[in-house]
Amino acid sequence: MQIIDGGVTAPKGFQAAGIYAGIKKKRKDMAMIYSAAPCKAAGVFTTNQVKAAPVKWDQKVVTESQFVKAVVINSGVANACTGAKGYEYCVDMAKEAGAVLDIPTDSVLVASTGVIGKQLPMDIIKEGIKVLSENLGTTRLSAGLAAEAIMTTDTKAKEVAVQVKIKETTVTLAGMCKGSGMIHPNMATMLCFVTTDVNISKEMLQKALSTDVKDTFNMISVDGDTSTNDSVLLMANGLAGNEEIVAEGADYDLFYEALHYVMEELSKMIAGDGEGATCLFEVKAIHANTKEQAVAISKSVVTSNLTKAAIFGHDANWGRILCAMGYSGAAFQPDMVDIFFASKAGKIKIVENGMATDYSEEEATRILSQEAVTAVVDLKMGEMEATAWGCDLTLDYVKINADYRS
Amino acid sequence: MQIIDGGVTAPKGFQAAGIYAGIKKKRKDMAMIYSAAPCKAAGVFTTNQVKAAPVKWDQKVVTESQFVKAVVINSGVANACTGAKGYEYCVDMAKEAGAVLDIPTDSVLVASTGVIGKQLPMDIIKEGIKVLSENLGTTRLSAGLAAEAIMTTDTKAKEVAVQVKIKETTVTLAGMCKGSGMIHPNMATMLCFVTTDVNISKEMLQKALSTDVKDTFNMISVDGDTSTNDSVLLMANGLAGNEEIVAEGADYDLFYEALHYVMEELSKMIAGDGEGATCLFEVKAIHANTKEQAVAISKSVVTSNLTKAAIFGHDANWGRILCAMGYSGAAFQPDMVDIFFASKAGKIKIVENGMATDYSEEEATRILSQEAVTAVVDLKMGEMEATAWGCDLTLDYVKINADYRS
Repeated sequence: MQIIDGGVTAPKGFQAAGIYAGIKKKRKDMAMIYSAAPCKAAGVFTTNQVKAAPVKWDQKVVTESQFVKAVVINSGVANACTGAKGYEYCVDMAKEAGAVLDIPTDSVLVASTGVIGKQLPMDIIKEGIKVLSENLGTTRLSAGLAAEAIMTTDTKAKEVAVQVKIKETTVTLAGMCKGSGMIHPNMATMLCFVTTDVNISKEMLQKALSTDVKDTFNMISVDGDTSTNDSVLLMANGLAGNEEIVAEGADYDLFYEALHYVMEELSKMIAGDGEGATCLFEVKAIHANTKEQAVAISKSVVTSNLTKAAIFGHDANWGRILCAMGYSGAAFQPDMVDIFFASKAGKIKIVENGMATDYSEEEATRILSQEAVTAVVDLKMGEMEATAWGCDLTLDYVKINADYRS
Repeated sequence: MQIIDGGVTAPKGFQAAGIYAGIKKKRKDMAMIYSAAPCKAAGVFTTNQVKAAPVKWDQKVVTESQFVKAVVINSGVANACTGAKGYEYCVDMAKEAGAVLDIPTDSVLVASTGVIGKQLPMDIIKEGIKVLSENLGTTRLSAGLAAEAIMTTDTKAKEVAVQVKIKETTVTLAGMCKGSGMIHPNMATMLCFVTTDVNISKEMLQKALSTDVKDTFNMISVDGDTSTNDSVLLMANGLAGNEEIVAEGADYDLFYEALHYVMEELSKMIAGDGEGATCLFEVKAIHANTKEQAVAISKSVVTSNLTKAAIFGHDANWGRILCAMGYSGAAFQPDMVDIFFASKAGKIKIVENGMATDYSEEEATRILSQEAVTAVVDLKMGEMEATAWGCDLTLDYVKINADYRS
């Protein structure tokens, strides 16, 4: 597998565009991805019962449509809690994109992020779709503009691309996503779009996505609030020309490995760029009896407000970690647990068998004063492990989320 | 039922003391409650798998001892994650208190709150127990000193007392508690002690406590972190002289009503004095189909970081509330929900049938700028309801929990 510089236009046959349409005050606010070759599509969506209109539309498209050719995305308005009218507007977005691109309405996926409870400004959206279709391009720049246009308060655009050889054929995967951020009275939203030219059956594509999301996007948390709009969409147009992947095996494994890399990198980018975050906080639970146990424990630690605030303070506060493990719901032996902190500045064991080691606070603080820090909790029970990603809880997180409309 | 000015010494036969022993740098750090008349005791404890030594000891005492006569409490050191030695020290505290008070070791309850992972300074503790026994008093002041000595970063001592007539007999109940706070690298701890002179069987006492805690202490959340030390202890010495309550009925109901008042008031005091909090945040879920549904929804909203930050910003951010309801795990119809904000400044409907009303942001902000604010979510499904209490998420919460040892 080779990591390449690229965005969603890196795989063969994908075009993209990102523009300022006028939904937001200043920044780019509409993006489009297009493949003239029909794509198989797979998707995973928020489990929140309150689902935004585009989530409902995309679930239908991914399940029922023969193929997908485009995604149209707006930031600024989430089209959530907007009733029957909001759903109509969402369908209108797909219709309009279908019309300007001359493709079926049901081959257009739609995504929105931004203010909740507000209707889309449809005149601006329709004009935006027209401009997007005229600006579609296959260049690195076009992908970058699209990645920029889906940002809300993200501080960085988030893109990744890789290539993998399946037998003699080069297959490319690329993705862009946006994380937590808000421009108005709102919740964070996670949107992710992965493109690939791999030739794969729809069943195997969905299987790869549904399996991998458990180890990637479902393992990140910025604040424990599951958005109404969260969506991960994966499109494969088959143009790489490899023999179609229709079952598990070596080819599937190679594709899966590349997909996992793309998804994990994008997940970490979202976690590390969480609202107000100063660092990426990674929690590894190792030597668990079961995967479920490792998942429950690592997620409980990575979402603990007290632990997250300690990470912000560069404080080796292991008591909060052990405490968060204890209320995770997963059974373990507290008096067997070892805890380590690690970063590029080193690794230190701070707890052995449930009690503090004679560690140096100074060294611990040095290790915790990095842009990415890891807590490893060793349960000493079995062979399973899991990793969760989050970020620190900072003064800026509270400021961003309390001081809207100021 | 009558609310009276008093603390844990209000019921007949209870004495208390609170002193500075030297565990903390400056503030009072040890307390004692004592009843010469033997008490029936009931307790509920943290569900965290990581349990502090005194929790383990108290669970044993409440279950196995014939009677209880004293509680000895220290703040400053939590005696959690302290291994076999920590448990020995806890038993030593009970032994020492038993010796100076001339009562059996197994009639002494022990509670600790403060730094985790650190052993108790036993010389100071033993000397403190001696001084406490010499300072026991029945006055209002003695109760107040005890309430003060169990504080960590609580900003106010928390006490409540009530009297209720059971047939012709006046029965008194009183309680003190401490909430979230830390003085060192640590987690918050909730400790609550309720005294009463009611004459009641041990079974009915535990039943009343276990039932009521579900509607009171289990409905508060400051930060979602369940401590290793949480304990609610209830002692009844029978001195009121009412006919012993041995079953449900009118007498039990009167006692239960008074107990519920004490427990609810103390719960709200803890929530409103959460770390860094500027206000008490109450969430009522009404017209639910089941109690479980109402509990899940109200707790999900009251623990949502985004909602809590909005409350801090006096922002009528209903989207975050609807979102938190949606990921609560409880089924409901998002497009039927009404949402209101209320406080002593008024009441306003901001959502009707899942969409924003034409409410005045100015009026909403005015209502939300109070020391206690309520969000009412009306599910319009059935007849059940639940109330949860928390506080806003503030800049000070992050400061307190990031900037320890500065």
